[in-house]
Amino acid sequence: MPAPIPVSISTAIMAAGRRLDQRGWVPATAGNFSMKLEAGRIAVTRSGVHKGFLQPEHVMVVDGEGRAEDPALRPSAETLLHCGIYRRFPGAQASLHGHSVANTVLSRRAGACVVLEGYELLKAFPGLETHEARIELPVLDNDQDIARMQRELDRRWDALERDGVAVPPGYLIRGHGVYVWAGSMDGALARLEALEFMLECELMQGRG
Amino acid sequence: MPAPIPVSISTAIMAAGRRLDQRGWVPATAGNFSMKLEAGRIAVTRSGVHKGFLQPEHVMVVDGEGRAEDPALRPSAETLLHCGIYRRFPGAQASLHGHSVANTVLSRRAGACVVLEGYELLKAFPGLETHEARIELPVLDNDQDIARMQRELDRRWDALERDGVAVPPGYLIRGHGVYVWAGSMDGALARLEALEFMLECELMQGRG
Amino acid sequence: MPAPIPVSISTAIMAAGRRLDQRGWVPATAGNFSMKLEAGRIAVTRSGVHKGFLQPEHVMVVDGEGRAEDPALRPSAETLLHCGIYRRFPGAQASLHGHSVANTVLSRRAGACVVLEGYELLKAFPGLETHEARIELPVLDNDQDIARMQRELDRRWDALERDGVAVPPGYLIRGHGVYVWAGSMDGALARLEALEFMLECELMQGRG
Amino acid sequence: MPAPIPVSISTAIMAAGRRLDQRGWVPATAGNFSMKLEAGRIAVTRSGVHKGFLQPEHVMVVDGEGRAEDPALRPSAETLLHCGIYRRFPGAQASLHGHSVANTVLSRRAGACVVLEGYELLKAFPGLETHEARIELPVLDNDQDIARMQRELDRRWDALERDGVAVPPGYLIRGHGVYVWAGSMDGALARLEALEFMLECELMQGRG
Repeated sequence: MPAPIPVSISTAIMAAGRRLDQRGWVPATAGNFSMKLEAGRIAVTRSGVHKGFLQPEHVMVVDGEGRAEDPALRPSAETLLHCGIYRRFPGAQASLHGHSVANTVLSRRAGACVVLEGYELLKAFPGLETHEARIELPVLDNDQDIARMQRELDRRWDALERDGVAVPPGYLIRGHGVYVWAGSMDGALARLEALEFMLECELMQGRG
Repeated sequence: MPAPIPVSISTAIMAAGRRLDQRGWVPATAGNFSMKLEAGRIAVTRSGVHKGFLQPEHVMVVDGEGRAEDPALRPSAETLLHCGIYRRFPGAQASLHGHSVANTVLSRRAGACVVLEGYELLKAFPGLETHEARIELPVLDNDQDIARMQRELDRRWDALERDGVAVPPGYLIRGHGVYVWAGSMDGALARLEALEFMLECELMQGRG
Repeated sequence: MPAPIPVSISTAIMAAGRRLDQRGWVPATAGNFSMKLEAGRIAVTRSGVHKGFLQPEHVMVVDGEGRAEDPALRPSAETLLHCGIYRRFPGAQASLHGHSVANTVLSRRAGACVVLEGYELLKAFPGLETHEARIELPVLDNDQDIARMQRELDRRWDALERDGVAVPPGYLIRGHGVYVWAGSMDGALARLEALEFMLECELMQGRG
Repeated sequence: MPAPIPVSISTAIMAAGRRLDQRGWVPATAGNFSMKLEAGRIAVTRSGVHKGFLQPEHVMVVDGEGRAEDPALRPSAETLLHCGIYRRFPGAQASLHGHSVANTVLSRRAGACVVLEGYELLKAFPGLETHEARIELPVLDNDQDIARMQRELDRRWDALERDGVAVPPGYLIRGHGVYVWAGSMDGALARLEALEFMLECELMQGRG
């Protein structure tokens, strides 16, 4: 029998949900969250529940390919995107997906990326030691075929690495929200808040 | 003597009120909520109370024509719109009416409908399996004659059905807010949140 | 010795402060609230305290001319405006003054009044039975001489009455916020919420 | 052994953090707060923690030059700016630094200062007895060399004093937030709320 989800993990995921809900970033049943467990297992939110009112039973376990350990449970539709993050970035321990008005409006209006520069909060991202850095946040077209969207994402990440550009720990899906990750849930929440803050600034200053 | 309102029903209606109030969607005494009971009876909020501070005694019962079981109590002015929803859509179990800045501004500016397309959150609506769907949310002119407004709404719904278009589980009244419904209170809240989120995006992106 | 302030009165005033603070309408030490007591006495908030954190000792008593019963206490600077309301409108029992971004921006931009029309929420104001009504909310120039500002206000109210126009139970001071009143604190809060909602709609739709 | 931080001080700093977080002014690990202790010592928040969830152990002590009493602890990166305030303004007892969308967008767009005039809330600032006053809030270019930024600030303050202009108890750093101070934490919070309110008004009225 597989190991149960540690209470510290389900508690961190439930708290993240309440926090995002207070900000208005998980409307309806939108958003999904995950944390890495031991042995390649991943704790992820179940499909179809409101992320602001999560209970322990709303968190389940999948393997690195997104397959549910308990076949009676259905993971979030975008579980493969969480798996794609953990597969590529060994330091990632927690991933958050949320919908904000700012990230939705800006991603609908953007081309292949959203550029953020001149913000002190860029320092919340790794490798950016000063506010003079800039970040090009990838924007993907939305696609109901999640595996295909992950392949497109891997191509984008491959191209960044070929060009010697540090892959930013986040991306947008057009009209569909943001993904961020970090080495801990607190780290992922901090990156999400930093990113949403800068996107809201972009929205309010009338440039996308 | 008619059966009392089940505690689960009045609790769900009071909780919905607190949730909408946190979002700023029930200013003053605006908004009204209902849930279907057995035998065609409907539990609905009373007129003239703040929906963010509902107590059990602020929920009353009407029949399918909106007549109060207890003639001493006055139901919400728009009770006939709730009745119109339950009469037409047998699956509807809960209905919510709220006023948001976004739905008020957009409905005042709109023509006969508000078009929403390209949002992942469209999947919160039935029959829309992908974000590529679009929804034409009906916008009715406001009218203090609620029965007349319901007749106009029925004409609009009839026309949609004649054209083979799925009737969306929601509509706007110009300068007066939104109505949504679903098979449960949680479902109605999810649709309301999804709809308000998309309307706020429309407002922020400067298109109505 | 004068009668103490009834607990129900100080409680209602403190609760109003917390509510307005949640909405962001009493920044810094801005805003002031009052309720009528017996014999022409008025309970009013003291000067210089944050209205979101009121304690019973932050509410004091003045007479109809704004003179403190306890000369050691200083009432809100705008106490005379509260007195002006109770003097003119015998039905008024509670008055609220708050600063919102919407009422500040719109009053700075407006001429002698702000016009509101076509909103269902206009029904929160007396004598407006339908959304087809319109309201002309007076906008006064700000003035540190409160008695002079009250005289100007009385002239405006006189002129409205001469023209047979119902005096709306609220007004704006340019760059300085809103005043509303009603026959109870709940009524005053409902009018404030209705008014702020419509002003925020006006602000968001780009018309002032 | 140095004296511990009084509970009243750490409590005031933690409460300020929760308040700013509710307003959205300390995203990620942004923001930092300080209060003056006896003998030139300063209590300041530690680097790298979320200011909305401060615990007593997240507050530490530095001397007037920003050197940690406990060398194992790292103070906020901008500690020298807090020291610069206490060095220059003997009446300052509490300083707050926060990031809001309004102060970020406006400081990025502004020249050498942001002008605020015609707001009643200007009275929250010292020496401004009426709303007819105006304030020129200095805007500094952001700089990762904090000592250099403080020297530039001192030059700006020197120039104001030479011109006989009262130094306003606050300033903006471009794309990086606001600093305010006062003779108590309540006073600093009131000035911050007043300032952010006026900046949000400026942002909403489309002028920076």
